[in-house]
Amino acid sequence: MTRTPNSSFSGVSRRALLLGLAALPALSGPFLRFPASAQTPTDPLPSWNDGAAKQAILDFVRATTDRASRGHVAPEKRIAVFDQDGTLWVEQPIYTQAAYCLARVPAVAAEKPELKDVEPFRTVLSGNREAVAGLTTPDLEKILAVTLTGMSVEEFEDEIGIWLETARHPRWNRPYTELVYQPMLEVLRFLRDNGYKTYIVTGGGQDFVRVYSEQIYGIPPEQVVGSAGGAKFGYDKDGKPFLTKEPKLLLNDDHAGKPEGIHLMIGRRPYAAFGNSVGDRQMLEWTAAGPGTRLKMLVLHDDSAREYAYGPAEGLPASKIGTFTQALYDEAKKNGWTVISMKNDWKRIFPFE
Amino acid sequence: MTRTPNSSFSGVSRRALLLGLAALPALSGPFLRFPASAQTPTDPLPSWNDGAAKQAILDFVRATTDRASRGHVAPEKRIAVFDQDGTLWVEQPIYTQAAYCLARVPAVAAEKPELKDVEPFRTVLSGNREAVAGLTTPDLEKILAVTLTGMSVEEFEDEIGIWLETARHPRWNRPYTELVYQPMLEVLRFLRDNGYKTYIVTGGGQDFVRVYSEQIYGIPPEQVVGSAGGAKFGYDKDGKPFLTKEPKLLLNDDHAGKPEGIHLMIGRRPYAAFGNSVGDRQMLEWTAAGPGTRLKMLVLHDDSAREYAYGPAEGLPASKIGTFTQALYDEAKKNGWTVISMKNDWKRIFPFE
Repeated sequence: MTRTPNSSFSGVSRRALLLGLAALPALSGPFLRFPASAQTPTDPLPSWNDGAAKQAILDFVRATTDRASRGHVAPEKRIAVFDQDGTLWVEQPIYTQAAYCLARVPAVAAEKPELKDVEPFRTVLSGNREAVAGLTTPDLEKILAVTLTGMSVEEFEDEIGIWLETARHPRWNRPYTELVYQPMLEVLRFLRDNGYKTYIVTGGGQDFVRVYSEQIYGIPPEQVVGSAGGAKFGYDKDGKPFLTKEPKLLLNDDHAGKPEGIHLMIGRRPYAAFGNSVGDRQMLEWTAAGPGTRLKMLVLHDDSAREYAYGPAEGLPASKIGTFTQALYDEAKKNGWTVISMKNDWKRIFPFE
Repeated sequence: MTRTPNSSFSGVSRRALLLGLAALPALSGPFLRFPASAQTPTDPLPSWNDGAAKQAILDFVRATTDRASRGHVAPEKRIAVFDQDGTLWVEQPIYTQAAYCLARVPAVAAEKPELKDVEPFRTVLSGNREAVAGLTTPDLEKILAVTLTGMSVEEFEDEIGIWLETARHPRWNRPYTELVYQPMLEVLRFLRDNGYKTYIVTGGGQDFVRVYSEQIYGIPPEQVVGSAGGAKFGYDKDGKPFLTKEPKLLLNDDHAGKPEGIHLMIGRRPYAAFGNSVGDRQMLEWTAAGPGTRLKMLVLHDDSAREYAYGPAEGLPASKIGTFTQALYDEAKKNGWTVISMKNDWKRIFPFE
């Protein structure tokens, strides 16, 4: 199968998108697009500036893969986990999955007209951005329930695929799937090249992320751990079995739910963990508490020019999402976790730059 | 690391067992022990007699891996799932995990003396085999709750490791971990050699099976899907995080729970599924319902001389566990699933033979 390197989701037909996603070679995709002249060919992290963060990654890989090192880790134990929103791709101004759920409301309301006069659906349908921004958590949960459940697992995958093809981020006017961080794609590939299994461990929906994880990160669906609802087995009128997505939460994969989800889905403690918010704290603590060499990293959003700035460093404003509190910053500094400054550590932010 | 090929769990020290399990190369273990003279070196299934079952496996692998075949499956989609009890190892006279739970009761009662005078613990402690055999499902659930939950995930792993080292199957007087089916070990390896990811999908406890799956089957913990309870994150008095196994069932991985568990834990429909009882029916149906070439196989226990005989074929007596009903047999025959006769299709049953 051939692909135009820069097409991402935008240049491919709907059929190709829906049928071909999982068939793409795991190593195709934007993370192979290094600028030809940027660095020596042997630098595995060409989009990283020299500094403590880049060095921490290089040192960790050397220590855990050199058989002569005290920190050597057997290949089958090499597990690395990555938060997604704000760690692997942009999470502002709202989570991509939330953008999907809001965009999906008109289609759901067309099928279930009784929702049109009921809040919070009436507000979403009004198109009043300010009112939508003011929706409460219970409101959002109602929206998630009707847009993420009730359909077969295949229908769900199709709906997301169609949306990803056409939706654009308001700031860059590009598909959300292009707004991945080039330096992190390099880390994913560098770790895999050194025998690590890379996992996403996200507070977002497991089934949502699985739709595109293989194409944009090279991470197969079975290595995506996320908040997960039940899928109920049943038969259609012809006796053909199918699975329906249910509004029953099995795993709330955020905060303490992240190490709990890692145990459920992986069953091994990671050697490397990357996050960017208080929702990743327990995952980093659980990773750090294991013996041997462990890599603990937090992405700090301090680059309003190239991306966004929100968090504790140098008095950045707090954000409703992706909260990187001063307490988390202090815990990182106290325990020797590495804070990645997007502004200082990253030469490039996006593959398309 | 060197290992005596036939040691399994019996010949290794407790420390080596507990610390080294996951560090063993994935392809070591009993499934590499082929008799040198049994077959031509090119036969990937030397313990299988020629026949429809062996041929179905060979045909499936050829059809799904030959790039010129209409049934070709992209490597990253090659998922094969295996029930464990009665499919990969012996499940009679009781499930190995049940044997563990019963054996664990005295240790639990020593820690919690109040249990000694309470049923069903009093019956188990009495050693009256007939009374133990008559315990009801609610009784067994109480025993499972106290023996499988309440401890940290590491303590649980240690306790099982110690038990596996010393426990012996009553019929063969060998460690349970040696009572694996040599023909199925060959299938696992043959599929892996052809790019398949092999998963266990068991009604048994996920954490239980994960302790030994890598050593005896070459299947890593992250590829074990089983009935799973919650693991709760917390901190000890020194602030060190830990996970405690909770008596809260997240996934009842049997019957309809098997395809549901496959969706939760893998997120892809398998191309091959192996089972041996009504608990595997929905998993086989879900596998069969996908497009393309799919392999559906059921192990029939019809060999009382070399193993056990229970099930519908030729009027075999029914069994309380591993129920292979006449209805399942009829469904298999009607839908072209392959029934494996242990008596006729398997040249050898165990690696130690």
